Amino acid sequence: MKLGGIEAGGTKFVLAIGDEYGGIFEKTVIPTEHPEITVPKVIAFFEGKGIERLGLGGFGPIDINQNSKSYGQIQNTPKTDWVGYPLGAALKDSLGVEVVIDTDVNVAAMSEAKWGNAKDVDSCLYITVGTGIGAGAYFHGQTLKGLSHPEMGHIKVARHPDDTYKGTCPYHYDCLEGIAAGPSLEKRWGKKGHELAENDKVWEMEAFYLAQALTNYIYILSPERIIMGGGVMKQQQLFPLVRHKVLEMLNEYVSSPHLTEAEIDQYIVPPGLTDEAGIKGALYLAAT
Amino acid sequence: MKLGGIEAGGTKFVLAIGDEYGGIFEKTVIPTEHPEITVPKVIAFFEGKGIERLGLGGFGPIDINQNSKSYGQIQNTPKTDWVGYPLGAALKDSLGVEVVIDTDVNVAAMSEAKWGNAKDVDSCLYITVGTGIGAGAYFHGQTLKGLSHPEMGHIKVARHPDDTYKGTCPYHYDCLEGIAAGPSLEKRWGKKGHELAENDKVWEMEAFYLAQALTNYIYILSPERIIMGGGVMKQQQLFPLVRHKVLEMLNEYVSSPHLTEAEIDQYIVPPGLTDEAGIKGALYLAAT
Repeated sequence: MKLGGIEAGGTKFVLAIGDEYGGIFEKTVIPTEHPEITVPKVIAFFEGKGIERLGLGGFGPIDINQNSKSYGQIQNTPKTDWVGYPLGAALKDSLGVEVVIDTDVNVAAMSEAKWGNAKDVDSCLYITVGTGIGAGAYFHGQTLKGLSHPEMGHIKVARHPDDTYKGTCPYHYDCLEGIAAGPSLEKRWGKKGHELAENDKVWEMEAFYLAQALTNYIYILSPERIIMGGGVMKQQQLFPLVRHKVLEMLNEYVSSPHLTEAEIDQYIVPPGLTDEAGIKGALYLAAT
Repeated sequence: MKLGGIEAGGTKFVLAIGDEYGGIFEKTVIPTEHPEITVPKVIAFFEGKGIERLGLGGFGPIDINQNSKSYGQIQNTPKTDWVGYPLGAALKDSLGVEVVIDTDVNVAAMSEAKWGNAKDVDSCLYITVGTGIGAGAYFHGQTLKGLSHPEMGHIKVARHPDDTYKGTCPYHYDCLEGIAAGPSLEKRWGKKGHELAENDKVWEMEAFYLAQALTNYIYILSPERIIMGGGVMKQQQLFPLVRHKVLEMLNEYVSSPHLTEAEIDQYIVPPGLTDEAGIKGALYLAAT
């Protein structure tokens, strides 16, 4: 089936024509600006391409309840230009095709489960650590949603004893996203993440926060694999630090061979689809 | 179908003969002692009753992976007599029927979704606050499990500024269970929970911890309803305190009419099946 996919992120939109098997025939990337600038560009990309359906993995909060009147509408977000914008309806009306909507991280979890680093298991969690922090989960054939979609980046974490930075989140200050996403690194340390690569203290603190979150996700969801993506996770030195701290925090409470020094490097892993987890997931979503 | 059900808790085992529609024909309660004392009593209750299958909702950690060699075996628990005990296999071998196993809180969530206070929605979370703290979830027809089962009572929470009590959890000290389950109330304040009913400070602190946990569960799982049971929740004054603090902590970040002062008393609720959620869930589980 010829499908359209959109990975609508906070800084960029990835647009693609492809199929439900992970094939991508055409792809482009545009910046996330005001919806009146960005959305016409999205429509122009897909118009006349003959797509049968469109899948959208969007930044949240976004209404993903198919029975809701505001399905596909952006909700309260620090990106104020987008609050209340009916993204799903705008695309459906202009392109005349069914638009299926889930969160960007839910569709990334789904495509990692289909084709990436979780294809051998029945459940996984995908977390992105970048401009923001979000996570999605795929369990036994379904993405996780209920009252709304999860907002796993906004959980409260205990503060590192040496951290005096108040946090960036306009809703909670020092929730996980407020204290561990890319912008908080830059504001706390005065430099961008990639300029801090050699400063061990930075990554020890970052791992302390991320490991707390992962430990909570393990206690609450018990996924069979955790995939960590996003710009901050390009700092590969974070992986062993996070894995080590997760084991330390769990303190052997959860019995699983994967939660041991011997196997945790196969449990907490980078994305198998590198930067294409989101867009391939959006294409797969279109066919559901 | 004539079914057997067991709600295996940390202080008592509830045993019942019933059916998959919530019917209970016969029921008894025995204390949780050493497995060599308790298990023969369980077998004696079911023997000769003609049950076709047996469902067991057990205290955790317990292996609930049907493909595992140790399916139904109790894992690391502070109840050391039970560590490594093959509860599922012992029952199957003695009674000659299939034994289906999940956690006590997962089956409680399932039966509240079938017949109790979540029967009008597709997902719910059930948390028990008593001798320990555990929570289970039921989403779109399945209980939540993956690598293992969730251990939601062991999440880390931020300490109340006035709390100097170190916590009771042998694995994590001041995780949620270590700092907010019944035994921690008694040790911190020097009296049992029901003797502290008039002390507002006790319940303000307890609500602070429970609301943190619920806020995390909402961010991570987004259940359509939260049901709070267990001995500590018999203190009805906790409900409005917890609801209020959850709204305060969410700070309007999650858009839902249920997460407002007007509707939260229909979102965070006591069990509809009072004390029978676990045993009815175990019976239903037997038929799955």
